[in-house]
Amino acid sequence: MTRTTIDLNADAGESYGAWTLGDDANLFPLLSSVNVACGFHAGDPLTMQATVARAKQHGLGLGAHPSYPDLPGFGRRIMEVSPDQVYTDTLYQISALAGMARAAGVPLQHVKAHGALSTRAWTHAPTAAAIAQATRDFDPALPLMVLPATLLETEARRLGVPVVLETFPERAYLQDGRLAPRSMPGSSIHDPAEAARRAVMMATQGRIEAIDGGHFVCDVDSLCIHGDNPNAVQIARAIREALEKEGVAVRSFAGIS
Amino acid sequence: MTRTTIDLNADAGESYGAWTLGDDANLFPLLSSVNVACGFHAGDPLTMQATVARAKQHGLGLGAHPSYPDLPGFGRRIMEVSPDQVYTDTLYQISALAGMARAAGVPLQHVKAHGALSTRAWTHAPTAAAIAQATRDFDPALPLMVLPATLLETEARRLGVPVVLETFPERAYLQDGRLAPRSMPGSSIHDPAEAARRAVMMATQGRIEAIDGGHFVCDVDSLCIHGDNPNAVQIARAIREALEKEGVAVRSFAGIS
Amino acid sequence: MTRTTIDLNADAGESYGAWTLGDDANLFPLLSSVNVACGFHAGDPLTMQATVARAKQHGLGLGAHPSYPDLPGFGRRIMEVSPDQVYTDTLYQISALAGMARAAGVPLQHVKAHGALSTRAWTHAPTAAAIAQATRDFDPALPLMVLPATLLETEARRLGVPVVLETFPERAYLQDGRLAPRSMPGSSIHDPAEAARRAVMMATQGRIEAIDGGHFVCDVDSLCIHGDNPNAVQIARAIREALEKEGVAVRSFAGIS
Amino acid sequence: MTRTTIDLNADAGESYGAWTLGDDANLFPLLSSVNVACGFHAGDPLTMQATVARAKQHGLGLGAHPSYPDLPGFGRRIMEVSPDQVYTDTLYQISALAGMARAAGVPLQHVKAHGALSTRAWTHAPTAAAIAQATRDFDPALPLMVLPATLLETEARRLGVPVVLETFPERAYLQDGRLAPRSMPGSSIHDPAEAARRAVMMATQGRIEAIDGGHFVCDVDSLCIHGDNPNAVQIARAIREALEKEGVAVRSFAGIS
Repeated sequence: MTRTTIDLNADAGESYGAWTLGDDANLFPLLSSVNVACGFHAGDPLTMQATVARAKQHGLGLGAHPSYPDLPGFGRRIMEVSPDQVYTDTLYQISALAGMARAAGVPLQHVKAHGALSTRAWTHAPTAAAIAQATRDFDPALPLMVLPATLLETEARRLGVPVVLETFPERAYLQDGRLAPRSMPGSSIHDPAEAARRAVMMATQGRIEAIDGGHFVCDVDSLCIHGDNPNAVQIARAIREALEKEGVAVRSFAGIS
Repeated sequence: MTRTTIDLNADAGESYGAWTLGDDANLFPLLSSVNVACGFHAGDPLTMQATVARAKQHGLGLGAHPSYPDLPGFGRRIMEVSPDQVYTDTLYQISALAGMARAAGVPLQHVKAHGALSTRAWTHAPTAAAIAQATRDFDPALPLMVLPATLLETEARRLGVPVVLETFPERAYLQDGRLAPRSMPGSSIHDPAEAARRAVMMATQGRIEAIDGGHFVCDVDSLCIHGDNPNAVQIARAIREALEKEGVAVRSFAGIS
Repeated sequence: MTRTTIDLNADAGESYGAWTLGDDANLFPLLSSVNVACGFHAGDPLTMQATVARAKQHGLGLGAHPSYPDLPGFGRRIMEVSPDQVYTDTLYQISALAGMARAAGVPLQHVKAHGALSTRAWTHAPTAAAIAQATRDFDPALPLMVLPATLLETEARRLGVPVVLETFPERAYLQDGRLAPRSMPGSSIHDPAEAARRAVMMATQGRIEAIDGGHFVCDVDSLCIHGDNPNAVQIARAIREALEKEGVAVRSFAGIS
Repeated sequence: MTRTTIDLNADAGESYGAWTLGDDANLFPLLSSVNVACGFHAGDPLTMQATVARAKQHGLGLGAHPSYPDLPGFGRRIMEVSPDQVYTDTLYQISALAGMARAAGVPLQHVKAHGALSTRAWTHAPTAAAIAQATRDFDPALPLMVLPATLLETEARRLGVPVVLETFPERAYLQDGRLAPRSMPGSSIHDPAEAARRAVMMATQGRIEAIDGGHFVCDVDSLCIHGDNPNAVQIARAIREALEKEGVAVRSFAGIS
């Protein structure tokens, strides 16, 4: 479980038309992969193109970041979308980004569900299966980035979709592998040094400390930075430097089976 | 210029959510190609999937039908969208449909601009170039369906994009190859027999009669039926039967270089 | 509880741009009130204006029909919209329709929540309170049309919002006053004569028969026809004729405190 | 033409969902009126409510700022929307903001067209008439804020709509009263002191210097600050201080006939 490389990912391309969100320019040099908004919660086509170009320039692995169709809610509101619609909405968004990547001469590296769509897929099997199926139907070799101990991981594995496991150095976990709810005190880690310490433990030992005591272990493939955090750049830098100090290189997982 | 086969195309998949438009069920058996709405003027992802499945079932050539982003206006209102945005909007829509086609195991056959985007591209070179470039950047072998004597044809040829020329048996033309404006009396042909007669002349002689006298000649690859016409099915049937009677088979142009 | 008049309402103005839904032209002469889509699930501004004009022409009571912001889902998908957003979304939509009514010289008669927003408000108090509060903040005298035995009724009464109780002659009920779930056999009544019989019993006795035996009683102010029913016009006609035969006139409730 | 008070206005409420635009918090204390986005180019309902509350807190005159329906283009792209649709789109947006203002206990002070809708109305009489008619049909006493020497002014006066004339201290003008095109060198004034000098001349003498020599004169009711300017706050402060130094108080025009 000791790794010599690990992926560092963040959401990206979350601007829209006249509106800017996130600090892609300063964050991209620190990452190895990005999850790019596909127009349903953010990311108009011009923004998508610019984000793909920037990712290419930094050699980042490119991920599609499909969402519920909810621009005013930024894809953060659970919607009771039918599995058929989750499937077609997801396939539509993967395809749109993949085509823009293709025009730029960049391959699509992965898929990662955004916001409320992701949250619902943790516990709602039909939603999870629809996302995994859409990923597989677009390309059976395309990995889905998932959180451990979720139904999205279960369904992806069941359907034979390659799985990339990600954890959050900035978020507290419960012993059973689930994220601590945001309402719980200490659920978010704001100190870059502490986030970096946790990142190193995740990468080198696959060990995730639990807020309710103890820990759990999983083979972490990717560490996720919340790009909408005001100090995201600072945290990403601390994590990257700590990893490299421990001999773990930050690398995207493309080509790593 | 005498053809033994010709393509017969119509716009399709123009429903959206709870709303139905067009009579795809009855029209598809008569066609050889369809231009499928990609979500910007019509065609939510679930509708797109159903339309792709129906096209596959009837063995039709599948085309992406990109539009201005204008759902309330059905893509029929000219918008002063910058060439960069036309490019990315077009690329996004082609990609979305292509991915849904790929998941269904169907290749994308062509691209055709919808409504006001198409109309503007007839006379506005930067818009025409942006559409052609997006088509080429997605796939250099992907043909663009265009009207003869338009800047869209000019720009597509200039950029080396394969061109499929279409004419309208139901619409009157001017001597210079342009469509007669809808405001001109007789600009629309409502009689199925007359539309069929014109279709045969277009297919077998490449000859298009002009409303202002005379005619012009061009190598017509595809005949277009307006699916939103109340009697579209009747006209399509008359055209198809007349063509077959003259020994011209209705076939999509896929695989025909 | 014996009434000499009762209101007969249906959803209306559910077209959008190029798409038509419902048969407003034939349904309006049979109704006394309409609930008009306000742009979030259907009803672009031009459609709203035409619907207001048609309602005015038939002397119908005009209601705003606010929805979740969900055009592709026609407002039929539950969304976890925060109470603050439900409040502002509802206020926005009431205001928009009220202004179009004002320009046409017609007063706004009532508010009725649409689709999933309504369904959620039956059992989710914060959503119910947000809808009622928005109605009251727009106009304290403006009635909210609600289903009996729902939290929307409770919250509206608690906030002092005038309440108009509606029942569905075409739908089966449970003894506790709730609608029978659509999954239950017999939950929908398709026979116009049976719907008419139930309508008369609702209007003259305030008596609603339950599918699970027995009945419940409530002071029904309005009967609702589902306009998207293929035989909506036939059912509305049967109900109206049966009511008039029993001496109950179909009248809107405007001006009736 | 010498004034002792003048209005100072800026566009406001241009955020949307998760996205923030403009610096309303710092700009509002310097203004007397705001033009509030109504959801078509910016301004979701929650943002509208917050903007109305902030305007109320600062005692600002509240204006509706209707736009073409173009969220990805921020309402800055000309659209060939029919006059009927311009009328209903405008009426819808005025109504929506007016209702939110009513719920907050604030009157609506004025209407001002946004972006490309405004630009088109300068030279396209049917668009101008549709905007003016919608304003009048909502409330015959409601003023429309217009640029001098435009068809929007002409049509508003012809229809009897109260007119508020605004000029831009930061923009250069031509002798005929029109704005100098942005492509012309010197068309924008970046120096706060120079903007302030021009503002004083506009307010105290109704005199607008032309970039092509000479000047023109008009009775300026309001000065407009571009809120999306990075140094908007600085310019607004310079203008306000210069006006007050000259004895001209910054006041909204509500109640001033």
